[in-house]
Amino acid sequence: MSLPTKTRQWILASHPTGLPTYGTRTDTFALETHDLPALSANQILVQTLYLSNDPAQRGWISPPSQIDPKRLYVPPVQLGHAMRARGLGRVLASQNGNFAAGDLVQATLNWVEYAVLDAGDPAAGVRKASELPGGLSVTHYLGALGGTGLTAWYGLVEVVGCRSGERVVVSGAAGATGSMVVQIAKGVVGASYVVGIAGSEEKCRWVESLGADKCLNYKSATFEADLKEACGDGVDVYFDNVGGQILDHMLANMKQHGRIAACGAITSYNGEAVLPMKNYFDVVSMRLQIKGFIVLDFMAKAAETVGKLVGAVQEGKIRVGEENETVVQTAFEEIPGTWLRLFEGGNQGKLVTKL
Amino acid sequence: MSLPTKTRQWILASHPTGLPTYGTRTDTFALETHDLPALSANQILVQTLYLSNDPAQRGWISPPSQIDPKRLYVPPVQLGHAMRARGLGRVLASQNGNFAAGDLVQATLNWVEYAVLDAGDPAAGVRKASELPGGLSVTHYLGALGGTGLTAWYGLVEVVGCRSGERVVVSGAAGATGSMVVQIAKGVVGASYVVGIAGSEEKCRWVESLGADKCLNYKSATFEADLKEACGDGVDVYFDNVGGQILDHMLANMKQHGRIAACGAITSYNGEAVLPMKNYFDVVSMRLQIKGFIVLDFMAKAAETVGKLVGAVQEGKIRVGEENETVVQTAFEEIPGTWLRLFEGGNQGKLVTKL
Repeated sequence: MSLPTKTRQWILASHPTGLPTYGTRTDTFALETHDLPALSANQILVQTLYLSNDPAQRGWISPPSQIDPKRLYVPPVQLGHAMRARGLGRVLASQNGNFAAGDLVQATLNWVEYAVLDAGDPAAGVRKASELPGGLSVTHYLGALGGTGLTAWYGLVEVVGCRSGERVVVSGAAGATGSMVVQIAKGVVGASYVVGIAGSEEKCRWVESLGADKCLNYKSATFEADLKEACGDGVDVYFDNVGGQILDHMLANMKQHGRIAACGAITSYNGEAVLPMKNYFDVVSMRLQIKGFIVLDFMAKAAETVGKLVGAVQEGKIRVGEENETVVQTAFEEIPGTWLRLFEGGNQGKLVTKL
Repeated sequence: MSLPTKTRQWILASHPTGLPTYGTRTDTFALETHDLPALSANQILVQTLYLSNDPAQRGWISPPSQIDPKRLYVPPVQLGHAMRARGLGRVLASQNGNFAAGDLVQATLNWVEYAVLDAGDPAAGVRKASELPGGLSVTHYLGALGGTGLTAWYGLVEVVGCRSGERVVVSGAAGATGSMVVQIAKGVVGASYVVGIAGSEEKCRWVESLGADKCLNYKSATFEADLKEACGDGVDVYFDNVGGQILDHMLANMKQHGRIAACGAITSYNGEAVLPMKNYFDVVSMRLQIKGFIVLDFMAKAAETVGKLVGAVQEGKIRVGEENETVVQTAFEEIPGTWLRLFEGGNQGKLVTKL
């Protein structure tokens, strides 16, 4: 088999202010073909097999006027550069002693067909992806047994120190991170009561099948009252994947000294209206703690924690399977379209692009 | 001298929805005269000399529909009951071995001329008020060397663990609590840089005279830019006395892992418009911590900390004086009027009512 000498790639063509677009006059992304460089020492040539789709990617492409680059936890994507994304790929050729042709790797591959990576570059984050037990698809390294599972674990266990017997609420509970929070809370931490919040009755029933005592549909007309009833005298921990109005409601449903893991605020990624926080004074009167965190801060021990997650799966404490991911077979030309599904709220579990 | 047998008292007559009123058709408070009971065992009869005025009092009188009583850190004031307030008084008669006629005491005296108190009742919180060194007025027990000084100390030192060399911003910096935060940060903790935020140029110059490196007027048209410039690459600690829009601005001016002590949110006490929090995502991306606290949680060691505050005053590390309080000589009929000055934003330091 001859090695490829060119690669197609989706580059950032313009900074979106609202929802990104492509294939129109106001394109965010553009498809280009570039020559691949010859491999230097320590480099590997990788073919992209799967791409991870993450809301955080939206933050990397906002107009410079809307972001303060030094406040982003990873640098923004520059105009003309390939759109950044984690992925899984197959090594086609290697000038690095740690990798051989045929190896499966996780890396920051970006939206490209083929990537030449310096295997020691931290920004590339190349790690071997060994086969998973029980016939689990390796795509779970991009989700439940990768970034999203680790986000759930660190947020719940380390950031807010959730303990056995505590009462927990999780928003975005049918999402990639939220569905793992629900399971880690019930199956690993031993929370006594876990309430999920999701965007449809169908998602809610799925979250309950994962072990949540209850899951509430935030689109229901009675949501605010349902949440108050479900929280009773208040909960100890709120794992917040969404920010905005649901966070505001939750401020009024925490116990004294309750802890909130601030993991995401997807409702403001695309410049939508920002709603007032009516219950903010509860932070003071109820002595609440809101703690923001980024999974990247914990990556030094990621391999160890992935081992714990895989162990919990083997012991039946966490269920990982097809229901934890939506793998979308995608033509290279359609990569942005699959990614945009993130913002339609219709996915169950981790959204993975399969090339 | 014959002992009084009756007392006038201001009672809560109706729950205000906006700013409280009195002496109009929509009265919040009403003046009544009640008989005083004879002293039982352990009780003392106290004449009110000074009353403490605190924004938190507003929260105790909101309509039941607007508050969730179990979420208040002290119970609401009931209709027909005397308005609750801390104060300083003189013991006129005692059936309690720990107090004698003539003693000066701190207690929850309420808006009354004379109070019969059970000296052992935690709700009354009766403590002897010994003379202060250096000719300092005992009224400072209601402010700089009492609740507000303790609030400043615990928020800064215990809640967010401010350390020597850190950069600190304080809002409400000309207020009773804020002016102590500025001084404790610079004089006791050893912060390298302290920026105050206050509501007039005059207040700002006073805050700078207390040791702040800079004080910014939030009413200035250039405030947002001034704050950004003053914060440079971000600050470690924000002591938040106000919530609302200034908190929102500060979210964008914190260092990674910055800590915010959430002490107050005066802008929403009177039902004013709640503004959106545009920079909330910085809580996640900058891994910020927002920690609400209530000084009452720390009262077990209050006497010890008051001793440290008095010591810092004696060593010249903290300056306490007339500038830390506004003592308003007030006819009993005008107690609500003096209290309402809290919400006009015109006071410097602790607002004390002198009867």
